[in-house]
Amino acid sequence: MPTPTLLVLDAEPLPRLGRLTGHARIEHTDATGLAAHLPRADVLLVWDFTSRAVRDAWPGEGPRPRWVHTASAGVDHLMCPELAASDTVVTNARGIFDQPIAEYVAALVLAMAKDLPRTLELQRERTWRHRESHKIAGTRAVVVGSGPIGRAIAHTLGALGITTALVGRSARSGVHGPEDLDRLLARADWVIAAAPLTDETQGMFDARRFGLMQPSARFVNIGRGQLVVEDALAEALAKRWIAGAALDVFEAEPLPSDSPLWQAPDLIVSPHMSGDTIGWRDELGAQFVELFEQWVAGEPLKNVVDKQRGYVPGH
Amino acid sequence: MPTPTLLVLDAEPLPRLGRLTGHARIEHTDATGLAAHLPRADVLLVWDFTSRAVRDAWPGEGPRPRWVHTASAGVDHLMCPELAASDTVVTNARGIFDQPIAEYVAALVLAMAKDLPRTLELQRERTWRHRESHKIAGTRAVVVGSGPIGRAIAHTLGALGITTALVGRSARSGVHGPEDLDRLLARADWVIAAAPLTDETQGMFDARRFGLMQPSARFVNIGRGQLVVEDALAEALAKRWIAGAALDVFEAEPLPSDSPLWQAPDLIVSPHMSGDTIGWRDELGAQFVELFEQWVAGEPLKNVVDKQRGYVPGH
Repeated sequence: MPTPTLLVLDAEPLPRLGRLTGHARIEHTDATGLAAHLPRADVLLVWDFTSRAVRDAWPGEGPRPRWVHTASAGVDHLMCPELAASDTVVTNARGIFDQPIAEYVAALVLAMAKDLPRTLELQRERTWRHRESHKIAGTRAVVVGSGPIGRAIAHTLGALGITTALVGRSARSGVHGPEDLDRLLARADWVIAAAPLTDETQGMFDARRFGLMQPSARFVNIGRGQLVVEDALAEALAKRWIAGAALDVFEAEPLPSDSPLWQAPDLIVSPHMSGDTIGWRDELGAQFVELFEQWVAGEPLKNVVDKQRGYVPGH
Repeated sequence: MPTPTLLVLDAEPLPRLGRLTGHARIEHTDATGLAAHLPRADVLLVWDFTSRAVRDAWPGEGPRPRWVHTASAGVDHLMCPELAASDTVVTNARGIFDQPIAEYVAALVLAMAKDLPRTLELQRERTWRHRESHKIAGTRAVVVGSGPIGRAIAHTLGALGITTALVGRSARSGVHGPEDLDRLLARADWVIAAAPLTDETQGMFDARRFGLMQPSARFVNIGRGQLVVEDALAEALAKRWIAGAALDVFEAEPLPSDSPLWQAPDLIVSPHMSGDTIGWRDELGAQFVELFEQWVAGEPLKNVVDKQRGYVPGH
């Protein structure tokens, strides 16, 4: 096999692919150069996973990469009908983010239960004001999304004594199907959105679903911003349909500075950082290098995305 | 047995002792009336556990309560040589606060690991700034204090994947003795103070011990303020000897508004609330009623404090 051409979608050269020296001809491009580079690449590494350039630049016909890897769990930013219809294999960064995101969700749940944002506000005002807070052991959570991230979240919340139900695309052992979702939402203390963005999940957290939740319920989204109808969430918070929320992902990222979400009552806004623990870039690089070596050796690739569904199926 | 007199140290009558109607003559007093009431009381319930009035008012000789119960885990606010030397039994609220405090410590650890205070600051400024945060699984904690609260903390941190060592008054199975403390501090990512306030523990977290800790270490105190030399902690934070801290208890409570601790860098200040989840007052009341019924029936009391040591010994 001749030395394959690896095209990296990222504005800057990566220091993490050194092990591929001699095994790949590595080219870099930013979004504007992508369409011109794609036809001569064997492999595309989508390192800048915030870019939606692949959807625009993917060639309808003619030469194109045989394999696309994205350094992210979600693939919504690159999937398009032409890529889905092609024989190009798509892989993702499954596994890297599970534990960090589970910890991040636990941090948000505990911060809300223990009224930590208010504590920090009172600290700024040098005000000592004792309050009672919530015990989380014995409360109930629903995690929507039954992939490795959702399961890691359920495991971590369970370890904290929270009774946790998982909801997936279809019912299976230990996972509820969508038909149970509304019933589970109506009795949950914590609702965690951890689903991939697909046609089925887009906008699933809308006014009707926030209306089903308990006034004491709190909502967390670490999946994709488009899972949530943001205006409906802002209204649910303003009208006290639910007690609080935390968003790490948004319809538009970065969240524009004039967005009303920054100051919505009882809402924690964080900048899409839930999975990004120190060293994450190195882990993503090492994971890709390992996949690349498998691919060159002709071995079956791990983390292959079902392009119709938009995620890696199965356990 | 004639109807015993129960004296409640609290400014306001308690709505939680209804079950004792007919079984006790209940009197209330505030701190100023305590000395006058004590000689005719059979039982003293220290409901206002922030008061140090018992130390001042306890009679040196003559009639006095045969039993003192405090609605708190610590007994440092009421112990004095005369009480220690007397045959009066002292009990505490052992058990009520374990799980809430363990959750609170987990909330603080996760908030610091995930840089949540900075996230909330940036939110206030409507600024989107992605940062990397810390994974907690695989990190190391030392919990100083091996009573039920310390053990609950160790259990909860362990459930989150943190390798946790307990340090107690003396080495026993699963518990390190004080001789291991400095060595454990030097390699801990998290140091949690959960010890009772005694002659041995007063001021134990001083400049020398903060100097032993790693620059990346974070310190949490949910025990008693006097465990910590506050000036030394402020200096350790200012000089970056350690990376952060969270205090829920202080030498002086409420923390005076001119205390420099309110604005110490990387310090979370909260108002002695770690154990106080919704319903805690009812739980404390129910626990006392149960103890009272045992006492009237002549059964051995639970939660009896070793007045020399200053806590309930044993597992």
